[in-house]
Amino acid sequence: MESIVEQMHIFFEPRSVAVVGASRRIMKAGHVIFKNFVDNKRRGIFRGELYPINPHEKTILGYTCHSSITEIDEKIELVVIVVPAKVVPQVMKESAAKGVKAAVIISAGFSEVGNHDLEEQVKTIAKNAGIRVLGPNCLGVYDSQTGVDMLFLPETKILTTGDEVVGTPRPMSGHIAIVTQSGAFGVAALDYLTGKQLGISKFVSFGNKCDVDEPEMFSYLLQDERTRVILFYAESIDAGREFMEVAKEVTQRKPIVALKSGKTEAGARAAVSHTGAIAGSDKIYDSVFMQVGILRARDMEEFFDMGKALAFQPPAAGKNVAVITDAGGPGIMAVDECVARGLNVQKLSDETIQKFEELKREGKIPPFSTNLNPVDLTGSATSEMFEYGTKILLEDSEIHGIIVLGMHHLPALQEDFVDRVANLAKNHTKPVVACDIGETEMALHIRSRFDKLRVPAYFSPEDAARAMVALVNYGLYLKKCGRFEQYLTTFFQNL
Amino acid sequence: MESIVEQMHIFFEPRSVAVVGASRRIMKAGHVIFKNFVDNKRRGIFRGELYPINPHEKTILGYTCHSSITEIDEKIELVVIVVPAKVVPQVMKESAAKGVKAAVIISAGFSEVGNHDLEEQVKTIAKNAGIRVLGPNCLGVYDSQTGVDMLFLPETKILTTGDEVVGTPRPMSGHIAIVTQSGAFGVAALDYLTGKQLGISKFVSFGNKCDVDEPEMFSYLLQDERTRVILFYAESIDAGREFMEVAKEVTQRKPIVALKSGKTEAGARAAVSHTGAIAGSDKIYDSVFMQVGILRARDMEEFFDMGKALAFQPPAAGKNVAVITDAGGPGIMAVDECVARGLNVQKLSDETIQKFEELKREGKIPPFSTNLNPVDLTGSATSEMFEYGTKILLEDSEIHGIIVLGMHHLPALQEDFVDRVANLAKNHTKPVVACDIGETEMALHIRSRFDKLRVPAYFSPEDAARAMVALVNYGLYLKKCGRFEQYLTTFFQNL
Repeated sequence: MESIVEQMHIFFEPRSVAVVGASRRIMKAGHVIFKNFVDNKRRGIFRGELYPINPHEKTILGYTCHSSITEIDEKIELVVIVVPAKVVPQVMKESAAKGVKAAVIISAGFSEVGNHDLEEQVKTIAKNAGIRVLGPNCLGVYDSQTGVDMLFLPETKILTTGDEVVGTPRPMSGHIAIVTQSGAFGVAALDYLTGKQLGISKFVSFGNKCDVDEPEMFSYLLQDERTRVILFYAESIDAGREFMEVAKEVTQRKPIVALKSGKTEAGARAAVSHTGAIAGSDKIYDSVFMQVGILRARDMEEFFDMGKALAFQPPAAGKNVAVITDAGGPGIMAVDECVARGLNVQKLSDETIQKFEELKREGKIPPFSTNLNPVDLTGSATSEMFEYGTKILLEDSEIHGIIVLGMHHLPALQEDFVDRVANLAKNHTKPVVACDIGETEMALHIRSRFDKLRVPAYFSPEDAARAMVALVNYGLYLKKCGRFEQYLTTFFQNL
Repeated sequence: MESIVEQMHIFFEPRSVAVVGASRRIMKAGHVIFKNFVDNKRRGIFRGELYPINPHEKTILGYTCHSSITEIDEKIELVVIVVPAKVVPQVMKESAAKGVKAAVIISAGFSEVGNHDLEEQVKTIAKNAGIRVLGPNCLGVYDSQTGVDMLFLPETKILTTGDEVVGTPRPMSGHIAIVTQSGAFGVAALDYLTGKQLGISKFVSFGNKCDVDEPEMFSYLLQDERTRVILFYAESIDAGREFMEVAKEVTQRKPIVALKSGKTEAGARAAVSHTGAIAGSDKIYDSVFMQVGILRARDMEEFFDMGKALAFQPPAAGKNVAVITDAGGPGIMAVDECVARGLNVQKLSDETIQKFEELKREGKIPPFSTNLNPVDLTGSATSEMFEYGTKILLEDSEIHGIIVLGMHHLPALQEDFVDRVANLAKNHTKPVVACDIGETEMALHIRSRFDKLRVPAYFSPEDAARAMVALVNYGLYLKKCGRFEQYLTTFFQNL
């Protein structure tokens, strides 16, 4: 018997896959999924064997079709099931007979619509045969590196005008893993991350969770080298002892960020009618997350923002944050948010102030720039000033994290301040996050350049502050567990 | 003597402008500002007379230069002053001699850096001569309709690569007025609004506020027909009786949204060092805003989101919100945020549920779609289903606002659901807001199409919920003042 990690690995890198319900008809989920595999196999990304199963077709996209997996001579590791719910038990029985190791049931129509018996049937067959099951009622797995793509939503969509536009894109390869109960939220997340040019390591949608659950997936992602942070969306969690033990083990080595919806009574009622599961009191989740070191995002935007911060930057060794800015207003906004969320934005040390005073005397920063924290380089800011200022703050051992607010609108500020700041950040173990406000070319360029250089950049001062809050909170948790230094070492080794 | 409104009008539509400190050198603020006027005059947008003032030049951009405004024979209504601070009193004296009515002092170097005497001098000269002064240390005015553009930051910026990119764009004409103390935040706001394709009516940056202040500007914007909502950013407000009286009068007819930074002690300390003004206790601001009906945004994003909602949609007549969605997870997220912010998301009335059941019987919505609130059309949602569902909710008199969550990723959902929903919304006085998640083509298209049809669309369910919160809170305030019906009438007349 394989270990949990080996079992989970089959979902992400199967040596052979049968798509049961593969179809030639372009609107069918079974077509999209099978085609994803075919395309990725042609591109050389998917390296497993591939078999379409459909009793009504002879070939699909050039592959010989079989009417049942039992007809295939070769071994099948994984089946992806896209047939009507009532047929699924039969498919599972055949899978058992064939010695399949894992099944992803994309089909809906089980406990989420009250068909508990049907789900139980599937569960029993799987259990007896030792088949691990993802789903039912799920989107399955997407892995950009292995070419496994079970998303039945095509990457592009045809508008009524006949135009083809990007609809459900797949993000590039990166370091964020997405673990989601909701398929709809899952694809929305992929769309968001693609547009923001954030890469993902692995994507998995659980659906009804009749077998494979969060603890197993977390264990698997813990050992996955590409994954630096796990973004976890849930409406209901069976937060029993196993969940807590595994989560605790994982978070000491890899951050988990949770977006748990159904927080309010009305929201929980909606969650019940959506998944059929009981959502439980929100305060319990808060307490469980806190105990096991899961960072909880307040909303969707913070969820992604935290993920980016933790994927790009090391955690902070403490709560003291410095803000350096070329614009007073946004500086104040960042400070407000930091403090409201429990960080310290203290007056700088005398030693550091002296360094800034020295820069003023040398004419290297404007005489009226304040150096209390925020350091305000004023509207005369240049790239050099950002470099000098950031360097001083990075070298101040009393400061644990730095927020750089570089509004590009200033006439004298050239875009190379991004590279200068990022270069400095690279040579320190202290986290740096950035912000530029605006939604046109230059602002998008600045933020994207920062992101490329692994300094996470945000479109509002408050978002940047909240990203720093995540880095501080995770750092404090690691310190509490005595795992801070080990984490830093691994983090920088894996960069 | 002109009325306040007439006085303020000169800043936005002067018949004649002298730019004191106009320059031929492209890096100079005096060049950018003068060129803005010249360009807009050539385009026929700016219709006033234009005079460059600079003792060292004979002509600038084809305009004859004078060494002082006193040398000009024609009348000058407005001077824009872009000379070093110490020269400003002399310019003001000449302006007084010339009978100028209004001055915008762009120059910095006054009370914000401790030069209180210099600012007092300017103030006294202005007062004695009856000159109204905007600034000093400000960005002045931008009005897309009259071609007044005092922003010294060019629209494009040249990168070190030699590429020219959009740097500080000016938004198109629209219905949001921006009143800001911080110039840096002001230009950032213009950049944001341009990128989001949101139009503005008028932009004014106060700076040190040595003369013209918020109450006067609010009074002016109240009578400005293009302005539907005032977005007001401040670090310090002299919230005396006059401010409160004027704000109260304005908010009964036009919403004011405030982003007041310096909320925390550290933030307030930063605000003091930035503007030199005392920020005051944040709770006092909360209480003042509440009393006078100013809606307070929690952060930058909410500030803009609220502005868009109030510019596009009528306020809600009560707190009962319905959510209609094609994705369970995002539906729950919207409900959570609504409830957390004090709205009601109640079970729908029996009558309305019957209507949904009827649709199910007719096969017009999926049999398993829930109709409790949120109405979940499930992954089988089509444009027609959104239309049917939204119509039922709009016709339910117990519901005061509707949040439409249309994730475009669903295979059967065509983009015309946007037009169908917007058409229904247009024929009701109830607010509708929308959300689609994603940052690639289709999501951007859906949101932008919604926006064009004046249904404000947001990228996260929580943002959409917060937009609805603004519409509800403003509606409740208007009801309390007995102004709800009048506001609705005017709102729809001016669309």
